[in-house]
Amino acid sequence: MDFFQCIPLREAQEIIAKELTGAIVAFEQVSLVDALGRVAATDIAAIENLPPFSRSTVDGFAVRSADTFGASEAAPSLFTIVGEVLMGQPTDIELRPGQAATIPTGGMLPAGADAVVMLEYAEQPDPHSLLISKMIAPGENVVVKGEDIAYGSIILRRGQKITPAHIGVLAASGVTYVPVRQPVKVAIISTGDELVDIDVPVKAGQIRDVNSYALGALFTGWGCQVTRMGIVRDSFEQFYRALAEAAVTHHMVVISGGSSVGARDFTVKAIDGLGAPGVLFHGIAIKPGKPTIFGMVEGTPIFGLPGHPVAAMTVSDQLVKPAVRLLSGQKNTFQRTRVTARLNRNVASSPGRDDFIGVRLIKEGANNKAAPIFGKSGLIRLMAESDGIMHIPADKSGVYEGEAVEVLLLYDAD
Amino acid sequence: MDFFQCIPLREAQEIIAKELTGAIVAFEQVSLVDALGRVAATDIAAIENLPPFSRSTVDGFAVRSADTFGASEAAPSLFTIVGEVLMGQPTDIELRPGQAATIPTGGMLPAGADAVVMLEYAEQPDPHSLLISKMIAPGENVVVKGEDIAYGSIILRRGQKITPAHIGVLAASGVTYVPVRQPVKVAIISTGDELVDIDVPVKAGQIRDVNSYALGALFTGWGCQVTRMGIVRDSFEQFYRALAEAAVTHHMVVISGGSSVGARDFTVKAIDGLGAPGVLFHGIAIKPGKPTIFGMVEGTPIFGLPGHPVAAMTVSDQLVKPAVRLLSGQKNTFQRTRVTARLNRNVASSPGRDDFIGVRLIKEGANNKAAPIFGKSGLIRLMAESDGIMHIPADKSGVYEGEAVEVLLLYDAD
Repeated sequence: MDFFQCIPLREAQEIIAKELTGAIVAFEQVSLVDALGRVAATDIAAIENLPPFSRSTVDGFAVRSADTFGASEAAPSLFTIVGEVLMGQPTDIELRPGQAATIPTGGMLPAGADAVVMLEYAEQPDPHSLLISKMIAPGENVVVKGEDIAYGSIILRRGQKITPAHIGVLAASGVTYVPVRQPVKVAIISTGDELVDIDVPVKAGQIRDVNSYALGALFTGWGCQVTRMGIVRDSFEQFYRALAEAAVTHHMVVISGGSSVGARDFTVKAIDGLGAPGVLFHGIAIKPGKPTIFGMVEGTPIFGLPGHPVAAMTVSDQLVKPAVRLLSGQKNTFQRTRVTARLNRNVASSPGRDDFIGVRLIKEGANNKAAPIFGKSGLIRLMAESDGIMHIPADKSGVYEGEAVEVLLLYDAD
Repeated sequence: MDFFQCIPLREAQEIIAKELTGAIVAFEQVSLVDALGRVAATDIAAIENLPPFSRSTVDGFAVRSADTFGASEAAPSLFTIVGEVLMGQPTDIELRPGQAATIPTGGMLPAGADAVVMLEYAEQPDPHSLLISKMIAPGENVVVKGEDIAYGSIILRRGQKITPAHIGVLAASGVTYVPVRQPVKVAIISTGDELVDIDVPVKAGQIRDVNSYALGALFTGWGCQVTRMGIVRDSFEQFYRALAEAAVTHHMVVISGGSSVGARDFTVKAIDGLGAPGVLFHGIAIKPGKPTIFGMVEGTPIFGLPGHPVAAMTVSDQLVKPAVRLLSGQKNTFQRTRVTARLNRNVASSPGRDDFIGVRLIKEGANNKAAPIFGKSGLIRLMAESDGIMHIPADKSGVYEGEAVEVLLLYDAD
């Protein structure tokens, strides 16, 4: 299989989506403080009202709003103060017509009351009396029991990645354990006769195994549990055995390196040999990242990524990330890692191919300017200097200076 | 101190910057696989060239480019093949004029060679001869030793948050341990007579301690090491003791809750009592978040945040986050967590005050539309429903439908 047929990026994404839709990893229970960034495994309904009782939002006097009907500076309404609500305490006060109670911010609204008058609109001619010089609407300065979160309402949806605000909502409802998806277990196998690990000296002709570290960090940032299986070389048998083991002990296997024709043949042969359906595509029409392989072995997705670090990371963002999201049952939420920017120069591109070019982003007022970073393909430094990756879709032959482009931010470095 | 003077948001940020500039936490060494998301404590220079030798980027033949001068389809240049470069192996081949060597992608360029001819432009009349029908430029299909990363060049700058691409660059240079800043240790103290923890039943008049969980998750997401000190109530002495202990054992203390006038007095009195300079501001002109307190106690920053969860999180993003960045020595990088969007309706605002309003973001082609989420102030659900927070600066009296606004994304939930 020396020559391979490139398929469009979109088709590659569709094949992955078709294979992995519904193939969601198992769930586990974690305590609320460990739930940040995890993916909710079920819908969670509120088991309490928030607030659990109607509360005042100001310091003032609880009243029956109807009793202030017609009140004005000229003709204030008169009330009798029948008691005081204390912070953090229940109250057994029950307001009857013409009665009021002192209440602090956050205090529990007494029975009968439906509004709170702020201190500045009330006057106390004596400690037991109150004059209110303004009409008060029902519900004024009050948050009603269950108004924030009603008992039984859904506070976290299955497939949502849990944010600090979700943690707050769960805490507010007294949820101490959360069912979440297990982390997606990814094995990374490095191949390539020229590779050595980072902690040994490099001999002539050898280079370091960069990809398993860079990809490992990328996948870790997406919430995966990464096993770096090390560098496999020498024989097809050894590679086949390593892949077979990785495929049964992990949710996904990523083979890194092996950009030579021989190494690609190795990968294709091993994936096809391990189980059905084997290799599903080999080669996609994008730059960088053309010699990408994808297959399924007995339900486990296997990626064969190109050896150049930049190509490997670009393909990971386009194909491995959606696969991780599908495996963890993550819903498509708003893509937060994209920004719109205007190009600072013309950039050419080949129609029929999706191009990805590293850019630096320059802030100009409320807008972003994108400055493409050029250099020989495969230089990893280019990626470290980039703020993000500009995407030129397959149906365009280039982008002009000043035109708006989408910039994909591979990770949040803020 | 019942009434307080509000200062503008910008002034509050300047006071914090002035107090904390240079107050950077100590460093520690972590192994490369644990360095993701940490802040580099020093510049790191490459201790090796990348690539460590000049490499071919294609499968082909290494040649001296000058030997192809004048070559064409009609008059190809003739070469003698003197050997084969093997993948991952040093080579002792030395090309003399008219000589070529077989070389694989990634193979080490032999001495004398300065370019590689791709297979498709070469013809082998016999196993030892080669005809090249095209002029080859010096450096063609070659990455020169040190071209990606030169020995001694800076590959990671002090103050950078380490991304997967940085991990790749460090791996490429054989850096196995990285000096990084310690995580910023933050203590969260909850106050408020009405608060109970999330694992106990709520009695009438009480509500759950939401903020210490929501804020704890927010700070954890920024790389902090968070200690939830629990709920302190009852007496000023108990609160004072808890604050004194937290201030000496942590880099920063955040006091949550206590939105009542009495609780604020407590906080101010304790900060002023603990050491110089004490409270530096009390009250900022933003909504939500007005009753915010900031002080310094013997070099430790202390924040008193408002009790409403939404206000506490908004203030955290505007004031606590810059403080964390200063303490961890983080450089101002491109703000990745902002997007530009167009409003889908008119929104009014008070001049002289910075307003922050939760919005949902709706993707429309390459643009974002922002739909403000309105509701009674302080409803935490509003924040969980928001994709981000829209900022209306103090010098504006509102924003019109269709106008562009900056949306701050509090955390990356993608």
